[in-house]
Amino acid sequence: MCELLGMSANVPTDICFSFTGFLHRGGGTGPHRDGWGIAFYEAGGYRDFRDPHPSVRSPIARLICDYPIKSHIVISHIRQANVGEVRLANTHPFTREMWGQTWCYAHNGQLEGWASLPLSFYRPVGDTDSEHAFCWLMGELRRHFPEPPPQDEREALWRQLHRLCERLRGLGVFNLLLADGDYLYTYCSTKLAHITRRAPFGKAELSDAELTVNFAEHTTPDDIVSVVATEPLTSNEEWVRMQPGELLVWRQGKILARYAAA
Amino acid sequence: MCELLGMSANVPTDICFSFTGFLHRGGGTGPHRDGWGIAFYEAGGYRDFRDPHPSVRSPIARLICDYPIKSHIVISHIRQANVGEVRLANTHPFTREMWGQTWCYAHNGQLEGWASLPLSFYRPVGDTDSEHAFCWLMGELRRHFPEPPPQDEREALWRQLHRLCERLRGLGVFNLLLADGDYLYTYCSTKLAHITRRAPFGKAELSDAELTVNFAEHTTPDDIVSVVATEPLTSNEEWVRMQPGELLVWRQGKILARYAAA
Repeated sequence: MCELLGMSANVPTDICFSFTGFLHRGGGTGPHRDGWGIAFYEAGGYRDFRDPHPSVRSPIARLICDYPIKSHIVISHIRQANVGEVRLANTHPFTREMWGQTWCYAHNGQLEGWASLPLSFYRPVGDTDSEHAFCWLMGELRRHFPEPPPQDEREALWRQLHRLCERLRGLGVFNLLLADGDYLYTYCSTKLAHITRRAPFGKAELSDAELTVNFAEHTTPDDIVSVVATEPLTSNEEWVRMQPGELLVWRQGKILARYAAA
Repeated sequence: MCELLGMSANVPTDICFSFTGFLHRGGGTGPHRDGWGIAFYEAGGYRDFRDPHPSVRSPIARLICDYPIKSHIVISHIRQANVGEVRLANTHPFTREMWGQTWCYAHNGQLEGWASLPLSFYRPVGDTDSEHAFCWLMGELRRHFPEPPPQDEREALWRQLHRLCERLRGLGVFNLLLADGDYLYTYCSTKLAHITRRAPFGKAELSDAELTVNFAEHTTPDDIVSVVATEPLTSNEEWVRMQPGELLVWRQGKILARYAAA
């Protein structure tokens, strides 16, 4: 099983604390040794860092911890390969451009019968079930919405996304983090938990590494920062577990919409 | 003016030596302070590192120098902004997926009337002339070749690419590095020079930094490594300057095809 980590915040925020715990699962406390990646949406752009080597030993992962990149959306993934060999082309997150936006995707789980999902605009570069499902998902969204829906019709897009996720859940396990630069979408098939931190900020202790942070020292009273992960990352806070079939739409740290299993 | 650096090699090769000289031009010996990026095609994958800050002070650029990534194609770019503000979305190289391949693009120069180049499959995320021209170029290629041409009809694709480059040269200055994972394409509008190193390997001295390398110590007799740059990077070797309107197609360090100005 792979591990997912996502963040949505209303101010540019670094993910160093959560990422430190998360990457210990990449060959440290967890069995996820087959590569890792992290994507940042920063003011005016997107970039990702991917490495097909275990995250605990990766110099690029250490750089991410030491060189805080402030971002309002983050998607990260640690891989334990099941479909597709261990190589860079199979390392999440995957990206495609649609409507002049960079869409970023990471998947946890395993699908059956995925190879027959029909592709249109987008084709996989690697050979994982995950990237094939991503290309199908994006192709279906683009087919339904050749142009981006106006702001007040966004819910039609989100409902369509939920339907597509439900269809993928029918093929196996499909826990998803997806983002387009404005919104973070999290969909739970079996395992995803989230927490929203806002004033008054307190201390948090990592479960996977000996590290405590006092968020009060790093935030302003208006900050809202939400973190989503396969398993709760801290031992002294209350995380909310998502329900199977549930899609959450996040913006600036807040849940904008929720779609329950059909 | 921005600076371009490309590599094509028949064995996975690190670009640390050339990149060290190149990144000194990013706020060091050169005026190109508005961001930089480097893209690697490695066995089975693609990744890029981009930073909207000057390359000489970038911790990510230092990582690239210290952590040799072995690759058979590299494209790098240092930016001096003219069209589009300094931000991550405007930082080269740009990428799009076509036919299940990651295409990577970096441009040096400035175009006029670029905003009226019609777009189809691909749309820019940032607001530079460069990315608009890239989206137009890729859209035109895809329109002519909805499916990838078979290996023995690749020349039709290259001729079409040359025609499109010539059209862009008609709009201003268009020096180009483009790659699809198999081939590196270099097109000269005003300034591009290249060198091919093969046995017997000798020493090379950087023009922009005090560094000499003895390639004989880092290579095997069968290695063929070609480097393409806006200006020659070494002071003791003979670089070949490309002609205006010339397109070169590289694979595994060698020139496969050459198209001269129409």
